Amino acid sequence: MQYMVGIDVGGTNIVCGLVNERYELVGKLKRPTEAALGVDHVLDKIANMIGELFVQFEADRTRLLAVGAGIPGFIDPERGVSIFASNLKWHNVDVSGRLNAKVGVPVFIDNDVRMYVYGEAMSGAGRGAGVVHGVTIGTGLAAATVVQGELYYGSGFMAGELGHIAIPGETTPCGCGLTGCLETVVSATGIVRQAKQALERGRESLLRGPYERGELSAADVSQAYDEGDALAIEIMEYTGQVLGTGLSYSISLLSPDVIVIGGGGAMAGDRLLKPVRETLSRSVYHGYLERLTIRQGELIDDGGVIGSAAFAKSRAEKLRQTGEGII
Amino acid sequence: MQYMVGIDVGGTNIVCGLVNERYELVGKLKRPTEAALGVDHVLDKIANMIGELFVQFEADRTRLLAVGAGIPGFIDPERGVSIFASNLKWHNVDVSGRLNAKVGVPVFIDNDVRMYVYGEAMSGAGRGAGVVHGVTIGTGLAAATVVQGELYYGSGFMAGELGHIAIPGETTPCGCGLTGCLETVVSATGIVRQAKQALERGRESLLRGPYERGELSAADVSQAYDEGDALAIEIMEYTGQVLGTGLSYSISLLSPDVIVIGGGGAMAGDRLLKPVRETLSRSVYHGYLERLTIRQGELIDDGGVIGSAAFAKSRAEKLRQTGEGII
Repeated sequence: MQYMVGIDVGGTNIVCGLVNERYELVGKLKRPTEAALGVDHVLDKIANMIGELFVQFEADRTRLLAVGAGIPGFIDPERGVSIFASNLKWHNVDVSGRLNAKVGVPVFIDNDVRMYVYGEAMSGAGRGAGVVHGVTIGTGLAAATVVQGELYYGSGFMAGELGHIAIPGETTPCGCGLTGCLETVVSATGIVRQAKQALERGRESLLRGPYERGELSAADVSQAYDEGDALAIEIMEYTGQVLGTGLSYSISLLSPDVIVIGGGGAMAGDRLLKPVRETLSRSVYHGYLERLTIRQGELIDDGGVIGSAAFAKSRAEKLRQTGEGII
Repeated sequence: MQYMVGIDVGGTNIVCGLVNERYELVGKLKRPTEAALGVDHVLDKIANMIGELFVQFEADRTRLLAVGAGIPGFIDPERGVSIFASNLKWHNVDVSGRLNAKVGVPVFIDNDVRMYVYGEAMSGAGRGAGVVHGVTIGTGLAAATVVQGELYYGSGFMAGELGHIAIPGETTPCGCGLTGCLETVVSATGIVRQAKQALERGRESLLRGPYERGELSAADVSQAYDEGDALAIEIMEYTGQVLGTGLSYSISLLSPDVIVIGGGGAMAGDRLLKPVRETLSRSVYHGYLERLTIRQGELIDDGGVIGSAAFAKSRAEKLRQTGEGII
């Protein structure tokens, strides 16, 4: 049995998982990232966590094939460099090179969303499908596409910014510099913003309580929806319609077999997916819908770790076959 | 020197071109399709044209590597079958098999738009680029994407229906069964429809002459634009904005290095591309625009023939290397 280690490097925590060649998670460790203490501190911590995984879960470290790490922000997966990760304050960090020097096996990195979607495609809700388009809904929204087991990158590794297409009639400024981007509506942030704006206009709703306590969250909107709150229902309907509109473009351009919805937003389930499906039935050629399945992610918690491990395995095998580091 | 024959099968004419391995067109023949006389008639005619090409342009027929044919409608390029071509009245025609039996070399087919875009990517306006997204504007609008020299297909070979994404505020019924599709605006048909509807509402314009003579065309709208006609300018502006909106989705999802505009609509040049660029500057993350080039096609007349020949060469070489027929 060979092993990979998959790592999810977040702004708050690092999760390292020991994954076997059947993409099963043998065990995982979670530690605070402490990015403020510098890149070396974070990379040393990861190297130590990798060592501990083999001790704690009693696996043979000489069987470690490769390490994969999903990192937020802009990544150059070909060179293994984190170009820019705002919540880690990393600029042009040679993660693959520096971590390889510490752990002695090949290290492959990519954007955390791509790693999650790769995991769902190889071992989760998209398993066995030819083209898997995955969308993660969290504080923002991002997408990635896996085609016959390979991530689609586009020029500059920049494909998949479904979160930053402009939605007609929307004018909220977005962090990217544009206005009215899809993720200003379809994200935890966007759902909370819609609720706050309605409450500030005097709208009555069960959401007023958490709003006035200063703790209104997207989960509150889901809960109020379940209690029949009209505002919460409107917000989820509209959010689902906007997501459906965005996915209608993904479908017409990419023709996926499976769309996987991941991230915290996947917890909204049919509250979002019902208006998504209704929107698609009106806005996409029926031939697509006949062959398309839309599913919630199966690997919500461990998708990043399993995806990073699967990505490392695929890349390490290619490296061995061809001598090349990139697909 | 090896040769390929590239074929563009249209509803009206068949064009067969003799293409050398540098993707240069040595010579071509054009004959009426006469689809009404049946599939056998059309395939016999193509086989005869292939023979004549080698005689007329004095090339060595034993040097014919493969034949490629671009066919309108739904194609299964893997099996070499024309699933449905409405203007040829073809249903499930095994073009590759039947033509191979007549000409004795491998025959590869694909959708005519994909063949055109493949030609531009390999030997035209997208030469040397990693990701080429091509759009043809004619009676309708279609798109295809070439990634590192390979066509992107998606599930069911159905990717690229940029012409059938829904445009907000548009309600014109589309041939596909939906309403307000992008191609109901951005196409020769769409441009003429916009002009007719404005003239029928009583709008004054230089276009009234050709309209009343029953011969209003998209070229008339371009000409009136050049003469400063306010209606023609409005139509081209709006059409360019809608095309820009559609391309903003292509860019965010696919991150192309080059966008090639082909088909008759490419003749509109900056009349369309100026509003396209203005729209993109407002609706796409600037990082994309820094690396993206938008170009008119270079192979307008011969793109289908050269693309079909280049596609046949690529597929024949793969067939020889791997024993497989499909990428």
